[in-house]
Amino acid sequence: MMNALWKGRFREATNQMVESFTASIRFDQHLYRYDIEGSMAHCRMLAQQGLLTVAEADAMIQGLGEILREIERGSLAFDDAQEDVHMAIESRLMEKVGEVGGKLHTGRSRNDQVALDLRLFLRDEIHGTREDLRDLQKSLVSLARAHLGLVMPGFTHLQHAQPVLFAHHLMAYYEMFRRDRHRLEDCLERVNVSPLGSAALAGTSLPLDRAATAELLGFPQITRNSIDAVSDRDFVIEFVAAAALIMMHLSRMAEELILWTSQEFAYLEIHETFCTGSSIMPQKKNPDVPELVRGKSGRVFGHLMGLLTMMKGLPLSYNRDLQEDKEALFDTIDTVRQSLAIMARLWEHVSVNGARLEEMAAAGHTLATDVAEYLVLKGMPFRQAHRVVGNVVRHCLDQGKDFAGLSLDELKRFSQLFQEDLPPLLTARRSVDSRRSAGGTATAEVEQAITLAEQELEEGRS
Amino acid sequence: MMNALWKGRFREATNQMVESFTASIRFDQHLYRYDIEGSMAHCRMLAQQGLLTVAEADAMIQGLGEILREIERGSLAFDDAQEDVHMAIESRLMEKVGEVGGKLHTGRSRNDQVALDLRLFLRDEIHGTREDLRDLQKSLVSLARAHLGLVMPGFTHLQHAQPVLFAHHLMAYYEMFRRDRHRLEDCLERVNVSPLGSAALAGTSLPLDRAATAELLGFPQITRNSIDAVSDRDFVIEFVAAAALIMMHLSRMAEELILWTSQEFAYLEIHETFCTGSSIMPQKKNPDVPELVRGKSGRVFGHLMGLLTMMKGLPLSYNRDLQEDKEALFDTIDTVRQSLAIMARLWEHVSVNGARLEEMAAAGHTLATDVAEYLVLKGMPFRQAHRVVGNVVRHCLDQGKDFAGLSLDELKRFSQLFQEDLPPLLTARRSVDSRRSAGGTATAEVEQAITLAEQELEEGRS
Amino acid sequence: MMNALWKGRFREATNQMVESFTASIRFDQHLYRYDIEGSMAHCRMLAQQGLLTVAEADAMIQGLGEILREIERGSLAFDDAQEDVHMAIESRLMEKVGEVGGKLHTGRSRNDQVALDLRLFLRDEIHGTREDLRDLQKSLVSLARAHLGLVMPGFTHLQHAQPVLFAHHLMAYYEMFRRDRHRLEDCLERVNVSPLGSAALAGTSLPLDRAATAELLGFPQITRNSIDAVSDRDFVIEFVAAAALIMMHLSRMAEELILWTSQEFAYLEIHETFCTGSSIMPQKKNPDVPELVRGKSGRVFGHLMGLLTMMKGLPLSYNRDLQEDKEALFDTIDTVRQSLAIMARLWEHVSVNGARLEEMAAAGHTLATDVAEYLVLKGMPFRQAHRVVGNVVRHCLDQGKDFAGLSLDELKRFSQLFQEDLPPLLTARRSVDSRRSAGGTATAEVEQAITLAEQELEEGRS
Amino acid sequence: MMNALWKGRFREATNQMVESFTASIRFDQHLYRYDIEGSMAHCRMLAQQGLLTVAEADAMIQGLGEILREIERGSLAFDDAQEDVHMAIESRLMEKVGEVGGKLHTGRSRNDQVALDLRLFLRDEIHGTREDLRDLQKSLVSLARAHLGLVMPGFTHLQHAQPVLFAHHLMAYYEMFRRDRHRLEDCLERVNVSPLGSAALAGTSLPLDRAATAELLGFPQITRNSIDAVSDRDFVIEFVAAAALIMMHLSRMAEELILWTSQEFAYLEIHETFCTGSSIMPQKKNPDVPELVRGKSGRVFGHLMGLLTMMKGLPLSYNRDLQEDKEALFDTIDTVRQSLAIMARLWEHVSVNGARLEEMAAAGHTLATDVAEYLVLKGMPFRQAHRVVGNVVRHCLDQGKDFAGLSLDELKRFSQLFQEDLPPLLTARRSVDSRRSAGGTATAEVEQAITLAEQELEEGRS
Repeated sequence: MMNALWKGRFREATNQMVESFTASIRFDQHLYRYDIEGSMAHCRMLAQQGLLTVAEADAMIQGLGEILREIERGSLAFDDAQEDVHMAIESRLMEKVGEVGGKLHTGRSRNDQVALDLRLFLRDEIHGTREDLRDLQKSLVSLARAHLGLVMPGFTHLQHAQPVLFAHHLMAYYEMFRRDRHRLEDCLERVNVSPLGSAALAGTSLPLDRAATAELLGFPQITRNSIDAVSDRDFVIEFVAAAALIMMHLSRMAEELILWTSQEFAYLEIHETFCTGSSIMPQKKNPDVPELVRGKSGRVFGHLMGLLTMMKGLPLSYNRDLQEDKEALFDTIDTVRQSLAIMARLWEHVSVNGARLEEMAAAGHTLATDVAEYLVLKGMPFRQAHRVVGNVVRHCLDQGKDFAGLSLDELKRFSQLFQEDLPPLLTARRSVDSRRSAGGTATAEVEQAITLAEQELEEGRS
Repeated sequence: MMNALWKGRFREATNQMVESFTASIRFDQHLYRYDIEGSMAHCRMLAQQGLLTVAEADAMIQGLGEILREIERGSLAFDDAQEDVHMAIESRLMEKVGEVGGKLHTGRSRNDQVALDLRLFLRDEIHGTREDLRDLQKSLVSLARAHLGLVMPGFTHLQHAQPVLFAHHLMAYYEMFRRDRHRLEDCLERVNVSPLGSAALAGTSLPLDRAATAELLGFPQITRNSIDAVSDRDFVIEFVAAAALIMMHLSRMAEELILWTSQEFAYLEIHETFCTGSSIMPQKKNPDVPELVRGKSGRVFGHLMGLLTMMKGLPLSYNRDLQEDKEALFDTIDTVRQSLAIMARLWEHVSVNGARLEEMAAAGHTLATDVAEYLVLKGMPFRQAHRVVGNVVRHCLDQGKDFAGLSLDELKRFSQLFQEDLPPLLTARRSVDSRRSAGGTATAEVEQAITLAEQELEEGRS
Repeated sequence: MMNALWKGRFREATNQMVESFTASIRFDQHLYRYDIEGSMAHCRMLAQQGLLTVAEADAMIQGLGEILREIERGSLAFDDAQEDVHMAIESRLMEKVGEVGGKLHTGRSRNDQVALDLRLFLRDEIHGTREDLRDLQKSLVSLARAHLGLVMPGFTHLQHAQPVLFAHHLMAYYEMFRRDRHRLEDCLERVNVSPLGSAALAGTSLPLDRAATAELLGFPQITRNSIDAVSDRDFVIEFVAAAALIMMHLSRMAEELILWTSQEFAYLEIHETFCTGSSIMPQKKNPDVPELVRGKSGRVFGHLMGLLTMMKGLPLSYNRDLQEDKEALFDTIDTVRQSLAIMARLWEHVSVNGARLEEMAAAGHTLATDVAEYLVLKGMPFRQAHRVVGNVVRHCLDQGKDFAGLSLDELKRFSQLFQEDLPPLLTARRSVDSRRSAGGTATAEVEQAITLAEQELEEGRS
Repeated sequence: MMNALWKGRFREATNQMVESFTASIRFDQHLYRYDIEGSMAHCRMLAQQGLLTVAEADAMIQGLGEILREIERGSLAFDDAQEDVHMAIESRLMEKVGEVGGKLHTGRSRNDQVALDLRLFLRDEIHGTREDLRDLQKSLVSLARAHLGLVMPGFTHLQHAQPVLFAHHLMAYYEMFRRDRHRLEDCLERVNVSPLGSAALAGTSLPLDRAATAELLGFPQITRNSIDAVSDRDFVIEFVAAAALIMMHLSRMAEELILWTSQEFAYLEIHETFCTGSSIMPQKKNPDVPELVRGKSGRVFGHLMGLLTMMKGLPLSYNRDLQEDKEALFDTIDTVRQSLAIMARLWEHVSVNGARLEEMAAAGHTLATDVAEYLVLKGMPFRQAHRVVGNVVRHCLDQGKDFAGLSLDELKRFSQLFQEDLPPLLTARRSVDSRRSAGGTATAEVEQAITLAEQELEEGRS
């Protein structure tokens, strides 16, 4: 790095080991598009403010455009001696346009430049992630619509609780991802702010127009304090925290896919094109995709912890520690977006074992609450009804029976309120359709939820 | 727990060790106020829907009011055998109003009840935390106003970078806490949703009116899917993630307080009433408060990690693991709110060593960028100006001089553009006031930022 | 804190809010026993070195003994104004023995004192945790012995893989906890080092005998550098990391208990005295204990993260941040030890559904690898055998058959190597007993492992 | 992956997206050397057991050797369709030696194979990391030796506490890294265990000799339970936890380097070949290396959290989630080893500002404890001496004096025990040399510590 653009006060070349240890170009080259876009806007503003002539600005913007194309066709190689993507592009520009390229960095520091690049990049990725979420939601809603009437056991504590619609269960995930989309929208507001013009940390004495570059780059706001602007990585951490919640939701869905495709549950089957086999056991067909998605939640939680640790206790303003933000952010985005995309496709390759779900829906005395609610409607206080039905369940367990197998006489031994109108109620489907409270599992409620979801997805609302 | 309200199907008492291991009443008793408030609203709605008579509802609401007062005056003792705050209050109500108290839990489960309590509680705490943030911002703005003209060295990499206003540095923190307040406002939208009426997981067959309880409790929305409503702790995690960012900001401020009160910096002094001494070294006066605040960032990062881990891979819907949400949330709130409150007071007990700050403002050749910008305004491309000034700095270091000590002749050896108009520019104050770009450190800019902040604080905006 | 023992250079009382924020006595009072034990040893050494008279030492040791008894019978109240357990005990001693009590702190600082207390405390807790691990191992080994011959499906990817012994599966956990015990033993070596005599950070000019106090307190070594001795919390973090691994192991075991007691698996049943019910669903009997244990893994992972964050970037030597070590450590110990203890008891209250396990052992074509190994022993390369058996499996799936249902003719269509000797091999039990490689699942191997484990547990080895 | 070696029971090719999502070859190719080494040992054992002919074994071992050379000279390309390094090598072997290559996987599964590769790899890396630690320790000890007599202010709470030797401060880090080396040695015991022969999870019916492969590969032990052997990643997590402690230590050292090279401290200067400059500020020379090292602590803490999360709640035995172990482990090793290596070199490029350190050593009344200890030796109880000296300090602060500036008469006003023998004691050097307690900062003590360290380093002991 003897020729580094900041070398004026140095006599000796940077140590090779240091050059390699500190270089970020291996990973920050992914920002090239945003770096060039930001520099182009900066040039336009400098010309508007008289800090460049129009001819200078045109030459530089043209040069930057050529560099963009060179990178995209792979003809511009990066190496550690260039330190980072900003220096690499500025150096290349000077090769192309000569000494005037040295005016690009007027009123600018890498400190505000990298914050700008990262915000431009993340803004795009947030849009992309929201689309990925929507795509997965569509898969879920479409499957819910296709199996609207199918009942299954609802679980609490992984024990059978009450019958629910399979569609209702799927729509619970729809809601989680809806919150995720909403959260990203909120996060975007804090990402979408231009730091350009904050320079190193203090602003600049040159007559820049920060509002102009912000407008050229589509930012609705500019940062309000130059020291904060170069010290801040809240927007990265807030995004990664939102991503951690998405991965947490995916890990729950993945867990259920794994459970439900086990031999014991046998609720679902994943198509073999979405599975792999074993190197030793010829019969194996494994749910690798949900397993990996579940495992990858750790990765994103880890990045979140890494970033918080990085920022902990740092004095203002910019410190080199901040360079560590990029790999964590890039890997988080790759992980979340790939996981969302493959889960959207996976659900299209799942077959549902409806008969098994129906069969299990009422197993484990899942209608006990219905029986208690029956007594409540006959006037018994709920707490007493709970105790009466608990005793009936105890009796069933002792006798190896289920509710349907009890005679009215047997039931009356527990309460005189039991009447002939009870037995017809004792099916999983009746149970489900009785739960008509808002957001409940009755078919009518769920169908309405699906219809609303379809509208929201159509319109891109969250 | 032989008399637990869910004991109908059980024959034997719960094992003592299990009772103690699973009881949450030691910590969830803090929710008592919200539990009672929720039950009162539930009673009113049950009466409105004909599931209670008005007389029954009145008796129960009165009973609940008495329980509230008993708890507040400490006359109601809690113990593990009661399991949790919900069961404890329901049992006490039945002691007071008799068997009719058994109607309280009509169409309700602890699953939706605890989600409700937690949301009501967190809603209040978010309001409180936002006020605490505002209070700290006020301290900062007031100190900034009081020292508006004071210059100091601005830092990057903890090396002197450029002179800035002390007030500008303080206002960087104002911006961080402004984002925190904004983030909490967004988070509140997802907290402020009523889950009541979702029952165990499936909704209920009883004719509840969920909108009515939501309105009574001041919720603008209700949850849309009953399974999601009892499985979801996103709102807790999102809050804790926002709290982690607040603690990260505080840790940075704490670090600076510790650095700046060291013998080496000697920028600030903390009043002795905000310090403690040493058991062995008689001269010691330590910055314990910022040290503890810095250390407590780990606590909140840890809670965030703990909560994400807790949720990872859980199948739907409610699982007992979720009980672990409370202690982490409660401790997060205590930590953040106490840290904010004491930092607000601490800044009022700090004296600023203005002379020292002024003296150091230009030390370390912090005016080098000004000299480069001088050359740019004379027409030299920035990159060349940077190199020229770097060489001047090198010369200063070799000669043990600073810029002010160089003759014009010496300067001209580096560039003919140097003229007599340079020396008068070379003061920290001139440097600061030249940085008039939006959000820069010029006094006029900073004063405007302070005035805007004062208005925002007055109006409670973030 | 106007009367704090370090108040000589202060004029004003500590601010009340600061006193409360910085006080650690609410939690560090748990160290009282170790604090007194350390002080007694310190007194003995001071007398031996002529820094106390024998009479002074006797008076102080007697006074300390009385304080111990006062605390244990609850007659000594602690409050925030006393700051911490060290100051509280020293103050109380001065009340008892007068001004001579002021000699207790000779050549000592709270910095080495708290490190000492924590090491003494943790040493005991490590012994206790190792016993808890042993106790749980005993439950597992005893259950394994009781069900030695029982076969079940072994899983990879939660899919049936190969039949294994239930006892072999249990013994996998034995191995995990054996490593945990070993790891704690290693950790103990670094805990069991005396810091006493390091004073504030520099050692002391008073003629202390550090080896003497170390010997009195049973430490085999003393710390070698006084600055490190008061800056170091590695021993806390290493323990918490070991505890995180224990909790991770427990979370896996808990997950399996939850899966295996589901209606779908129906492999185990937990006795009702180790379960609780539902407030709304009368039939429920939930596996709360393993759910909570699984959830509590997050708590310990979080503490580990918190402690690492606390230490990150701290300059030497002691900083007040270190006070945050205690609550995390105490809660880690409580969590791990309670979780181990209750899981040991839980396994004694589990009934095994042997018939179900046997029935499922061969379901899912789990004998496919046996068939491949059969072909290998007939001379076919393994990779080819894998492909042949894979094709057989495909055929079974298409025909809805299992291996036992295939005729020899059908098999020969896949390979001429299949002979009459194959069918008798096709039982889960034969499969299990054939896996005689060291550490394999053959009954003879497992029985030997159980016998070895019983010896290790008897002798307390890990 | 239509030709994947496990494809017998599948009809269709794996979906392209799934192939790419599940492939690990992009990163697990780094294990190639260990994979081949393990396969060679496996072949030798198979031949010894009669499962291969000697000719077959020779052909395969020769083929594996050729593949090793192909990879090392870059002539064997890897792609996602090969899935992982194990399959890639096995496929290539079959291309080379024909169908007999299909015997390589006899009695082996990827489950035990990957565990083997990872253990062989990590064993080497632990040796390397221990050497890196030793190298850094050597730099520290050598610097300590070179500056043995230099005094500086010792810190607690970043406030001047007592004078210490600069060498003593450096040796505190020696101790931290000594513990790290010791911890890695303990960890190695649990890494250095052979899982080979555990097969998929159950062991094998083929007559393998596990002890033989273990011996060929230099493992002193074999795993004792086949299910545990393929489910276990404790050894990875334990290593990463040890690495997190190393990074924590480095972050503290980095923090001090950053503080000490600030303009305010001015204790050290880092040579310009180990620094970089600013894109905008010509005077800048930044401590980038320690900043990045400090920042990278977050990375490793994050990996630790990620791995614990990955394992949380996984049922036995192998699950695909475990594939996520590799990138975290590889990046941890790269980060720790590079950070250690560059810090070792950095210390060789630091110049120490001895005059400044000496000047500051007694600033801030750091001799107060010496004065108190003086009074103790005259018979005053320590607690009273602390108070008296505290009052003297108060007096100094009020008068703007230091101890040396007080007359004996002034001192006597605080205690009659003050005599003419006090003033000569009041130098930083006298203070330091008086602290002769074991592990204290007296020159003689520190020199002895250095000599011991030199011996330990020479002999490679920790």
